[in-house]
Amino acid sequence: MLLLTPGPVQTRPETRAAMAVDIAPWDPDFGREYTMIRERVRDIAGGMAGVHATLPLQGAGHFVVEAAIRTFVPSAGRILVVSNGAYGERMTRLAREAGREPVVLAVPDTRGVLAEEVAEALAADPAISHVGMVYSETGSGVVNDPAAVGAAVRAAGRRLIVDAVSAFGALPFDLKAQPECDVVLFTSNKCLEGLPGIGFAVCPMERTRERAGLAGSWSFDLGDVLRHAERSGWGSFRFTPPVQALHAFGVAMEAYLAEGGQPARLARYTENMRVLRAGAERLGLRPYLDAAHQGPIILTLHQPEAPGFTLAGFVEALKRRGVLISNFYTTPTPTIRIGCIGAVTPDDMRFALGAMAGVLDELGVTRRAA
Amino acid sequence: MLLLTPGPVQTRPETRAAMAVDIAPWDPDFGREYTMIRERVRDIAGGMAGVHATLPLQGAGHFVVEAAIRTFVPSAGRILVVSNGAYGERMTRLAREAGREPVVLAVPDTRGVLAEEVAEALAADPAISHVGMVYSETGSGVVNDPAAVGAAVRAAGRRLIVDAVSAFGALPFDLKAQPECDVVLFTSNKCLEGLPGIGFAVCPMERTRERAGLAGSWSFDLGDVLRHAERSGWGSFRFTPPVQALHAFGVAMEAYLAEGGQPARLARYTENMRVLRAGAERLGLRPYLDAAHQGPIILTLHQPEAPGFTLAGFVEALKRRGVLISNFYTTPTPTIRIGCIGAVTPDDMRFALGAMAGVLDELGVTRRAA
Ligand SMILES: Cc1ncc(COP(=O)(O)O)c(C=O)c1O
Ligand SMILES: Cc1ncc(COP(=O)(O)O)c(C=O)c1O
Repeated sequence: MLLLTPGPVQTRPETRAAMAVDIAPWDPDFGREYTMIRERVRDIAGGMAGVHATLPLQGAGHFVVEAAIRTFVPSAGRILVVSNGAYGERMTRLAREAGREPVVLAVPDTRGVLAEEVAEALAADPAISHVGMVYSETGSGVVNDPAAVGAAVRAAGRRLIVDAVSAFGALPFDLKAQPECDVVLFTSNKCLEGLPGIGFAVCPMERTRERAGLAGSWSFDLGDVLRHAERSGWGSFRFTPPVQALHAFGVAMEAYLAEGGQPARLARYTENMRVLRAGAERLGLRPYLDAAHQGPIILTLHQPEAPGFTLAGFVEALKRRGVLISNFYTTPTPTIRIGCIGAVTPDDMRFALGAMAGVLDELGVTRRAA
Repeated sequence: MLLLTPGPVQTRPETRAAMAVDIAPWDPDFGREYTMIRERVRDIAGGMAGVHATLPLQGAGHFVVEAAIRTFVPSAGRILVVSNGAYGERMTRLAREAGREPVVLAVPDTRGVLAEEVAEALAADPAISHVGMVYSETGSGVVNDPAAVGAAVRAAGRRLIVDAVSAFGALPFDLKAQPECDVVLFTSNKCLEGLPGIGFAVCPMERTRERAGLAGSWSFDLGDVLRHAERSGWGSFRFTPPVQALHAFGVAMEAYLAEGGQPARLARYTENMRVLRAGAERLGLRPYLDAAHQGPIILTLHQPEAPGFTLAGFVEALKRRGVLISNFYTTPTPTIRIGCIGAVTPDDMRFALGAMAGVLDELGVTRRAA
């Protein structure tokens, strides 16, 4: 089965195989491996030794997003949330329920936010301390630019929180060039091609330490995660970690570095997307985004308006042909979502296109000639 | 390597092997497996179909404890926490930081709480809505009795939260006989012998539904977990689950049922503990708990007062002989912790005792004759 969901992604056989072990998380042998993982992640984020720290948090990406908001945005404080898709909306809800006041900057989900729009919203409301932004919106596939937005945030004397869950490792990020950034977030199971179970925050240590005890949640206090790690001498976690997912993530990072790191990964995903998008257009399927706004992570297509077509039927028929895609969508209008990330290549995309062609025929959906 | 930590535990080969797969969490094939897991867990908790629900939550046990407190104890409300060990203390901290007011019922960590002590504390403070209790205290190994305490809670018209993280599946629990119980909690990696990554709450559905939106955290709102699952029609999770850990947990539950379920598991662990405790005493190591208060989950031993002994040295030397135990302790005085749970047998305990004897000799710790 070829997995083309935008995370959890298809992994390499050696990454998956690394899950099948018993590990005592507090054993020094694992501690060394864990230290290496945190250092490598910090480096990928453009962080600096002694200045930035990688803070792993058990659970899903939503958890580490909530933890970041709780840790850095003061209780009852205001955060401007860029909202051009499902994950911006989720950040808004996470902030509101955590007792922070989200101010929504609504942007169409068909383009990235402009730095000027952020600058304007910040100028209009001096009580906003933070901007929260999704790097790659996994709803439509649109990409926001953290460097450009970050410059506006910095100029306004505010702070930035970046949800890079579906971008990290593929799209570039340079924490040392973004001193306004309190935290960049991601999970084990997207562009670094590990298995799900753990979120990561990469943060400037000094600011993070100062925020310990202010999150209104012990579980989600990244300041306490850091202080605990520092007290232990080797970066120990507070609570039982998903240690197999961490171990496999270490193996996945070896493959990442061997492939050539971020530029190589971005190149492969971009080529996956390009092949898939062009092929889908040839099949008569219309992309949700203009080519200029198409990100490399996920291709979102309008569902064909044909009597024989249902998303459930399409997904089920594709699965019978060996390709598994998402069976839900998060755009305002009905779409099909196909992930371009994971241990998959342009040839896999060609295989998927062949399967899609067969399914459209099977469902009796008329398609343009190739 | 023989893993004798009180969780993550040693697993069976077929359980670990089940981790090494890619799974799309929203795929209907996995949905069926996931439904089966939730039903089996509900049954093990003594819950009833249509009345009680199993609510999985991504992450560690601390997270699901915080989620339970946030979901059921009103904001700024009071919870009486039975405190006879490290995990009672942790529950207190989780409650306080979540904006609930913990009232600590301090009990020595060498015995279980008495139902009368709970009744008295509740009579003294009508503002307490809930009692929080750890079933098996993984600090000292002492066991509290949820049925006896529950009766006192019921008589006082209050509600009960049971942290059964290190007890569930081995010590008996019967939710249908405890209508005062809002929730019983556990994780995948203790007595059910799965791998870490996911916590479980088993709750009465009607009460849980009513509490949706009141947790002060979207991530930790068990009411929302339930509502979302119900809306989906098949129990879908809100956020990416550690789907490999869930799949392996399903395999572990097959083995659990094949072994004979809770009575069989309790019998095996009790025999593990009995063999280990008797053997340790023969080696001159003094148990932390009286025999009458010794639970079957973990054996805690006083560290020998001998010049050659350090915990780190002992653990390291044992590891060289193939036995891995905890390298920290959570009792007020220095102890050694050895887990009696996981896919291990009395013969494994005998093997561990042989290794311990060798290590004590190696460290020059005089020991009584066997
Ligand atoms: C951009 C983005 N943010 C946050 C999340 C949430 O991650 P999780 O599903 O692990 O909670 C996702 C998941 O797809 C995502 O794509
Ligand atoms: C009784 C008890 N409660 C809670 C926990 C917390 O679980 P975790 O380490 O998964 O956060 C543990 C872990 O050992 C435990 O034994």
